[in-house]
Amino acid sequence: MHIGFIGLGQMGTGMVRALLRAGQTVTVFNRTRSKAEALASAGARVANEPRETLGGDAVVTMLADDAAVSAIAHAILPELPARTVHVSSSTISPALVRELAGDHRARGRRFVSVPMLGRPDVAEQGKLFAIAAGDRRVLDELRPMLDAMAQRTIVVGDAPEAANIVKLACNTLIATIIEALGETSALVAKSGVVERSQFFDVLLATVLSAPTFRPYGEHVRDGSFAPGFRLPLALKDIELVLGTAREHEVAMPVVSVIRDHMLEAMAAGLGELDWGALALVSRRAAGLDTRS
Amino acid sequence: MHIGFIGLGQMGTGMVRALLRAGQTVTVFNRTRSKAEALASAGARVANEPRETLGGDAVVTMLADDAAVSAIAHAILPELPARTVHVSSSTISPALVRELAGDHRARGRRFVSVPMLGRPDVAEQGKLFAIAAGDRRVLDELRPMLDAMAQRTIVVGDAPEAANIVKLACNTLIATIIEALGETSALVAKSGVVERSQFFDVLLATVLSAPTFRPYGEHVRDGSFAPGFRLPLALKDIELVLGTAREHEVAMPVVSVIRDHMLEAMAAGLGELDWGALALVSRRAAGLDTRS
Amino acid sequence: MHIGFIGLGQMGTGMVRALLRAGQTVTVFNRTRSKAEALASAGARVANEPRETLGGDAVVTMLADDAAVSAIAHAILPELPARTVHVSSSTISPALVRELAGDHRARGRRFVSVPMLGRPDVAEQGKLFAIAAGDRRVLDELRPMLDAMAQRTIVVGDAPEAANIVKLACNTLIATIIEALGETSALVAKSGVVERSQFFDVLLATVLSAPTFRPYGEHVRDGSFAPGFRLPLALKDIELVLGTAREHEVAMPVVSVIRDHMLEAMAAGLGELDWGALALVSRRAAGLDTRS
Amino acid sequence: MHIGFIGLGQMGTGMVRALLRAGQTVTVFNRTRSKAEALASAGARVANEPRETLGGDAVVTMLADDAAVSAIAHAILPELPARTVHVSSSTISPALVRELAGDHRARGRRFVSVPMLGRPDVAEQGKLFAIAAGDRRVLDELRPMLDAMAQRTIVVGDAPEAANIVKLACNTLIATIIEALGETSALVAKSGVVERSQFFDVLLATVLSAPTFRPYGEHVRDGSFAPGFRLPLALKDIELVLGTAREHEVAMPVVSVIRDHMLEAMAAGLGELDWGALALVSRRAAGLDTRS
Repeated sequence: MHIGFIGLGQMGTGMVRALLRAGQTVTVFNRTRSKAEALASAGARVANEPRETLGGDAVVTMLADDAAVSAIAHAILPELPARTVHVSSSTISPALVRELAGDHRARGRRFVSVPMLGRPDVAEQGKLFAIAAGDRRVLDELRPMLDAMAQRTIVVGDAPEAANIVKLACNTLIATIIEALGETSALVAKSGVVERSQFFDVLLATVLSAPTFRPYGEHVRDGSFAPGFRLPLALKDIELVLGTAREHEVAMPVVSVIRDHMLEAMAAGLGELDWGALALVSRRAAGLDTRS
Repeated sequence: MHIGFIGLGQMGTGMVRALLRAGQTVTVFNRTRSKAEALASAGARVANEPRETLGGDAVVTMLADDAAVSAIAHAILPELPARTVHVSSSTISPALVRELAGDHRARGRRFVSVPMLGRPDVAEQGKLFAIAAGDRRVLDELRPMLDAMAQRTIVVGDAPEAANIVKLACNTLIATIIEALGETSALVAKSGVVERSQFFDVLLATVLSAPTFRPYGEHVRDGSFAPGFRLPLALKDIELVLGTAREHEVAMPVVSVIRDHMLEAMAAGLGELDWGALALVSRRAAGLDTRS
Repeated sequence: MHIGFIGLGQMGTGMVRALLRAGQTVTVFNRTRSKAEALASAGARVANEPRETLGGDAVVTMLADDAAVSAIAHAILPELPARTVHVSSSTISPALVRELAGDHRARGRRFVSVPMLGRPDVAEQGKLFAIAAGDRRVLDELRPMLDAMAQRTIVVGDAPEAANIVKLACNTLIATIIEALGETSALVAKSGVVERSQFFDVLLATVLSAPTFRPYGEHVRDGSFAPGFRLPLALKDIELVLGTAREHEVAMPVVSVIRDHMLEAMAAGLGELDWGALALVSRRAAGLDTRS
Repeated sequence: MHIGFIGLGQMGTGMVRALLRAGQTVTVFNRTRSKAEALASAGARVANEPRETLGGDAVVTMLADDAAVSAIAHAILPELPARTVHVSSSTISPALVRELAGDHRARGRRFVSVPMLGRPDVAEQGKLFAIAAGDRRVLDELRPMLDAMAQRTIVVGDAPEAANIVKLACNTLIATIIEALGETSALVAKSGVVERSQFFDVLLATVLSAPTFRPYGEHVRDGSFAPGFRLPLALKDIELVLGTAREHEVAMPVVSVIRDHMLEAMAAGLGELDWGALALVSRRAAGLDTRS
């Protein structure tokens, strides 16, 4: 397939590498051009402007937040050919996805939402989980592309925003595990009688044995939070969850705790770390050293 | 090995069946005698009084709460032979375990703590995880017994209470997942655009893929909460966590949310269900029907 | 003084009546004209369009939310004479007030923020508390107007947004008392041994003796929540608090509890009641009848 | 009246001074004898043992916690004359009060519960609020004594424990105000545009104008937390609230937040300060200096 790809953060870069390795033809655009050029040696064509990514079978947008996606979407929509499907893979608000779906429909253009579940290293291996929503026939057409990026694609609804709601739910479950890991490991540490490595052996063999959770267990165990998914971006997702919860009048008290602890982490200067560093807030509150 | 076993709830019964299938000699006692007799056909000897379970290589106590364990322990300690190790497998407070360890030591008796992780059906298959703490040589002697009940034994410390702290941490992580599952599935349901079965397909393939979490995902998906581990017992564990947290001055806000929601579930008359029913509290709060 | 007044909800209407009774000349505008006409018999001039309210010493805007204030402010700013001070009395986001202050400054126009503390009946008596921020000389000029509406004016800063932050803090303290009243009265009711009226006698003589809190104690005691300040508006304020808290990276866990309970109240269909009805959420959660 | 008084902490000492000033005859006992002797010059008789305080019209017990009250009550009950009413003024668990009421009844002795609301300086002025529960005729007999200590006595039920439930509810409302004061003043401070003293002027004129709350507003404003009611004792009360809430299956999420923040305050070494220092936890979490 011929694929345009806009947005080359850590996740986007990994996804493009997986596409190229699977033999797809990919034209990439990124605001900071150097990130696009870094993919040229792997076979990507580098676009000078967003519109140069259009014209193929699909254009994937993979950007940081609602503002960025909204700006790009409104820039490319007037020039989007009827044959090119706009695949939104960003983790953005269901409300914006609903609006974009309407905008594309009004112009007779095709739009689906396929956010991805997984960390950057998993993206590079083409082993993400694709959460897809939109017109089934359109999603079927995209199969070769999706299969190159994801070990499995699950279609969760006809309205594109359905995929974003499910993606936010998954991120919420991960954030909850990180928070609970912070609280319990603070308790275990303060008890003074448990061998740290053995505690994590138990967790990694049982509750954290899912590949989704395993890295967070290891990061908290080792106290090392090199950025994969940075805290401010994770906070953005949690705010999207709470905003969607307000729209639907759903109380989510654990998510509120997570939000408050993320703010506390930011105020403590941890904003450059991976979101696993959320676990440090409970250590601090318990009066424990947060360096180890 | 010759093993005494006191306490034949769902977990205890499953553990004894696994021991018998592995060829161990087991003498069982239960206050309600019928539960003991139900194991006779599987090869267990039935004791009339707790002291008849003593005299072998080990006596396992597997009872509901601090009060029950304390009563039995003080009843059997004066008659416990030096050769018989007291193995406490109950999920009880670290403070009581510390006290019992001291009582046994003072009388020259051997005491270790080995709570088990897993649900009753896993117990019956001998596939639990054993979380062990205490004297390493004593735990080594118990290997044949532990291997009959658990797929793996992890020693987490020298002080017996260490095992109970780790067990409580694991139960906390499970309760947290149940709570977060309740909150997110209420949001997903109220959005009205996500296919319920597909949402759970995503979860079961990713965040809930660990065998520890899988059953809870299925129960919440199906809205069926036949008791495995009943809510009041789970609440007891959460109270133990918060009590231990108070002792060590550790704030655990997510655990506080869980406690409050468990109380709300009890007040709503859900106390006869499995602790997975904690997830219904968020559905109710969102104004959703809790029957389906 | 000659005063324009835009926005005649319950609070605005009360404030205008107080101004008229103090002998001020007031020209009023409201989108739904009937509310303006209702004030004509009390001496108000009725404007057909917002710009007819301009030209006096001040124009007060008293509207429901950020969107309404932003729309009106941008409509009147181009026609605002240099001599007319724009007095924003709405409870809106500090961020919007900061933006409006900048817009007025850029055009050489004068803008201050003076949100009011008190319920509609207190407004009508001219006994509100005025929380003011902005240029001190401008605020001094407005004295006769402020004294007609408020028993006391307290200037809290030079930046107009300062007044809105303080107003939000006050509303947060009131919401907190309502929530805590809900939790404690549920406990007292469920204990079954306390005489309800005597419990509230204790509260009204002590913790709730401040005029600010007294009405909420009476409403919860009587289970009567006729709308003074409706729940959805109160939720809007709480969202403003949390938005401002995010901006400044401040964790506010009690405010998060309040937000979640307000959403739960909305989902339970209590959105037409006064925000005191927040207290019913704890009653419901405790399994108590919420009708009495 | 002839009154025995056991327990001379800050509150007990203030109450005895008020009794003496009103012309009552008081015999005092305290484990640390020096505190009793300090009252001799004001006219108190000093007892060498608890039983020397018995024999008058009433004996008041005013001790720190359940354990202390239970020990003293069981020590004096066998020697308590029929004519001497046992007046329990301690803030203890409703469950213990229920038990003590039963014990006294079984022996034909009279027992009422009259916890006091107010700080030590108010106790000394005889201006407390007495929250009373028990047999009305007995309480009537005690009028001269209660009037000497309290500006007002409110009878809240026939079961003595009713008074303790109401006392705990009042302390919960005060703790909630302290916590909300901490959260809002952290927000106000971090905004950087509000004049601190003016913010507290607004609060003290409105939401904090009740004499019950005023001191906490002043302490938080001044950042001075000289012990009146120390944090560990306040935490004890909050634990009593949560224990009673568990007994009655009532969820109290704001109280859970307060408990967690009190634990955080203890872990941060603030345990020697007044419970107003709870407000410092939010300042710390916001990254603000907690010294000023």
